[in-house]
Amino acid sequence: MARLEIPVLIGRKRDGGELSHDELLAFVAAYVAGEVDDAQMAAFLMAGVIRGFSRQEAVALTEALLASGERIDLRGLRGPTVDKHSTGGVGDTTTLVVGPLLAAAGCQLAKLSGRGLGHTGGTLDKLEAIPGFEVDLDPHRLHDQVERIGLAVAAASQDLVPADKRLYALRDVTGTVASPALIASSVMSKKLAGGAEHVLLDVKAGSGAFLEQVDAARGLAELCVEIGRASDRHTAALVTDMSQPLGDAIGNALEVGAALAVLRGESTGRLRELSLALTAAMLELTGEAPAAAADRAAHLLDSGAGLDAFRDLVQAQGGDARVADAPDEVLPAAPVVREWRPEAGVITRFDGRRLGELAASLGAGRQRQGDTLDLAVGLVVHGRVGDEVVADEPTVRVHARTEADAEHVLRQLPEAIALGEEPVAAVPLVHARVGLPAR
Amino acid sequence: MARLEIPVLIGRKRDGGELSHDELLAFVAAYVAGEVDDAQMAAFLMAGVIRGFSRQEAVALTEALLASGERIDLRGLRGPTVDKHSTGGVGDTTTLVVGPLLAAAGCQLAKLSGRGLGHTGGTLDKLEAIPGFEVDLDPHRLHDQVERIGLAVAAASQDLVPADKRLYALRDVTGTVASPALIASSVMSKKLAGGAEHVLLDVKAGSGAFLEQVDAARGLAELCVEIGRASDRHTAALVTDMSQPLGDAIGNALEVGAALAVLRGESTGRLRELSLALTAAMLELTGEAPAAAADRAAHLLDSGAGLDAFRDLVQAQGGDARVADAPDEVLPAAPVVREWRPEAGVITRFDGRRLGELAASLGAGRQRQGDTLDLAVGLVVHGRVGDEVVADEPTVRVHARTEADAEHVLRQLPEAIALGEEPVAAVPLVHARVGLPAR
Repeated sequence: MARLEIPVLIGRKRDGGELSHDELLAFVAAYVAGEVDDAQMAAFLMAGVIRGFSRQEAVALTEALLASGERIDLRGLRGPTVDKHSTGGVGDTTTLVVGPLLAAAGCQLAKLSGRGLGHTGGTLDKLEAIPGFEVDLDPHRLHDQVERIGLAVAAASQDLVPADKRLYALRDVTGTVASPALIASSVMSKKLAGGAEHVLLDVKAGSGAFLEQVDAARGLAELCVEIGRASDRHTAALVTDMSQPLGDAIGNALEVGAALAVLRGESTGRLRELSLALTAAMLELTGEAPAAAADRAAHLLDSGAGLDAFRDLVQAQGGDARVADAPDEVLPAAPVVREWRPEAGVITRFDGRRLGELAASLGAGRQRQGDTLDLAVGLVVHGRVGDEVVADEPTVRVHARTEADAEHVLRQLPEAIALGEEPVAAVPLVHARVGLPAR
Repeated sequence: MARLEIPVLIGRKRDGGELSHDELLAFVAAYVAGEVDDAQMAAFLMAGVIRGFSRQEAVALTEALLASGERIDLRGLRGPTVDKHSTGGVGDTTTLVVGPLLAAAGCQLAKLSGRGLGHTGGTLDKLEAIPGFEVDLDPHRLHDQVERIGLAVAAASQDLVPADKRLYALRDVTGTVASPALIASSVMSKKLAGGAEHVLLDVKAGSGAFLEQVDAARGLAELCVEIGRASDRHTAALVTDMSQPLGDAIGNALEVGAALAVLRGESTGRLRELSLALTAAMLELTGEAPAAAADRAAHLLDSGAGLDAFRDLVQAQGGDARVADAPDEVLPAAPVVREWRPEAGVITRFDGRRLGELAASLGAGRQRQGDTLDLAVGLVVHGRVGDEVVADEPTVRVHARTEADAEHVLRQLPEAIALGEEPVAAVPLVHARVGLPAR
């Protein structure tokens, strides 16, 4: 692309126009090649954030990002290849439940993750709370493990959609994160590069998520599904609630414990409910009828097949597999545990983001890339919106490294959890199913 | 300004909000200091181009640019210090007429110019068509010359508003040129740094100018006047026509010849008319009544006082002063002169930009920074919109370095000058006076 045409393309988006498929591919390729500089890309992204990108542009952007790197080759695997992605939220550890359930169902999931840059670590960080667990798998080992046990969770290589990495860093500092097309193309380029035939998105809405409004989340879900289908992948999404913590736990080892509690049949909360919904949705995507898929997901959990698959995963990646049977003996524990017992009342609202920030302040999350996490610390929150606080039970347990850390969080908790006197309605967990048949 | 706040400020402009005076000053200062990078500035500029900047923001941006460099100190000069700026157009050489007229009127004009990056050279390039003329004056010599003869025309130093230079280069490649506030703050920061008490803008509208619509040009003029007054400068503007070439000439030596033809009383065209209007407007700004100002401007021209001041300028800056009395003997001439004689008809429209591009193709203008100009070449256009083409007189004379160059331009000219059969109305030269009393 001639240097001179770049400002013309930027100007067209500035004035509310649309770029063709070929123009967007050339624009991103020129960026990767260094012919478009960061300033030009930032101006273009800002114009797109304000003016909006069309669906065709979102599809083209995804292909352009995808073209910048290598793709995982999952051909030759026998079961249906599947992949899932959550747009992220506080205490969202469904992958540690859904992955084993899908493996137990005969699916093949090569889950590639990045390091979390948020309130708590990413899936990799959580798994590393299990002593010995290795997340750096070369492509050959990744393929072999998936073929053998149906599941692997590994760090994404630097060569997987490198243009997305550069764009994401640029967007982060230029106020150009908040665009459905940019978010969707970032998510979907990595899912398409991951090579699975079936892709399920868990798009979060609420105070603990990037998108607070359900409508915005549904729009993002629809766009992701459209992009996936444009590349001939079976794609669907659930729009789910993140107005309150998903599981009880916020913090890396605590979340592994919460996931194991579900897999071990010891927990009946929202994490179990959403994990079953996601597993069933994926089974629907691979061809099962809705009712049969839901039954099968519940059976895989109740029979212990999911727990077995978790144990296989830990074993295969070098971790201490006893964690599946005696989590408390294997997972690291924080030295200080303090309880928060508010006045009696009804829980009316959680500020999910604030809860996440408090967990991060204990050391559970990264403030910046490269920060070392304290895998043991975090919060355990008892209760959901609408629940009555019981006078003799703690509402939050703070797991901290020091008394001072715990004190700090205890002082801030009243800002993050609102109590009232009137009963309030419970919030539904799944707001919408996108790209799946009505049940 | 903390690194973290930058994306917040960008985000506010992205969402249509306004930055405070102090925030804009801090933002630009952080850019100059390297704490805001080009990508962040480009995103901010794009947001501002699309969402618009308020008048208060334009004033603050101007101050922020001004704060980045040094200012010329004109205190101690005896007459009223004046400065003028034209937003540029094809064959616009009014400075070479207005400057001498104002010097003859007792004003003091230290005119700082850049090199033109357009269809023809800037004022510096035009003056360099006079053998020996030097434009690099140190501040001491500049001040002395203005004190002695009332006029100097010199190259702006690199330290005059350096932030504007960086921003302009950034805007040029990121599609963020077209913003009234960005244009006005760029223009006015340089005028304010130039130190004059009285500032007159000549804002062009029409096919040969950056802004084609009169309303847009008037808006820019009003904004510039507001910015100047916010800094306690006497500021006014004329909005003038650039739908056809201003003088007969497009090309560096040719334009010097056209300016001298006006000063020598040999030309009665649009260049003379606008030069008198600008001179009179500046005299009004310094306190003269409109009618008296117009009379005085005409008298300074007709008496030869303007021509004397031009001669003094050339002499003071080392040029061959005989140019004032025998331009044809001193100015460089192109070896090839060819005539374009169209079919009979009425001139209905000039494409000013196309005419400028044709002059540039002969070597009169720069395609990119650093290009060497051919000062002798260019076009001389006879006639205005509404004039009838006379069968035995040429409409355009092409002054070229080679026959091939001339041929190329002759073939293209019919695209730049439209002829019709019906009479059309002449176009007024001055569309509006901004910041001056009604006459």
